[in-house]
Amino acid sequence: MSSGGVRPAALAELSFTDDGLIPAIIQDAGDGTVLMMAWMNQESLLRTLETGQTWFWSRSRQRLWRKGEESGNTQTVSDIYYDCDGDTLLIQVNQGGNGVACHTGNRSCFYRSLKDGGISHD
Amino acid sequence: MSSGGVRPAALAELSFTDDGLIPAIIQDAGDGTVLMMAWMNQESLLRTLETGQTWFWSRSRQRLWRKGEESGNTQTVSDIYYDCDGDTLLIQVNQGGNGVACHTGNRSCFYRSLKDGGISHD
Repeated sequence: MSSGGVRPAALAELSFTDDGLIPAIIQDAGDGTVLMMAWMNQESLLRTLETGQTWFWSRSRQRLWRKGEESGNTQTVSDIYYDCDGDTLLIQVNQGGNGVACHTGNRSCFYRSLKDGGISHD
Repeated sequence: MSSGGVRPAALAELSFTDDGLIPAIIQDAGDGTVLMMAWMNQESLLRTLETGQTWFWSRSRQRLWRKGEESGNTQTVSDIYYDCDGDTLLIQVNQGGNGVACHTGNRSCFYRSLKDGGISHD
């Protein structure tokens, strides 16, 4: 699909940073676990919509990357929401690789608590 | 509590932007709904840890604000996680105001889908 079924008016409501980026929160569509946060530019968002898999912009490597391109742990998009200010995305996905999103091998990138004795979140 | 039970070593692992900010994803501790995303600086994070309620940094108003200071819909912190890169926070909260986080009156700020015919997420 070329447009990914997206509403053009909705795309126009999005607000990107001066660097052309928007943060994307990635949430498991099944149980609601927040898996990771990464940045998208307009091209990675369009690729995500077109392919149904998540694409991001790597600020450190200055290139587009497809989640799972090395690990195989791709993410299939279930739905994409945007917030009231239009400056953050929430993308619900089905996480491949037995649900593991983090390069550390943890299911979620948010596996450590700031608090004393906090339990692992995976 | 003065330290909020935080692990000092964990605080040192956090990475702030050049502007001294870190994005904080706010998630309902009960059912996992992603409610909003906002920015914290170090002072707002410390106030959050000390008071047990969420404090943020407003980029537009250039001041600290406590969630719910006007609406009364405060957020009581359940736990705080940080991601593998240490540059994003995930804060699980009990959302006051009958669970309404968004200033629009929607439960979540992510109440609109980018997709055609997407259903409201609240």
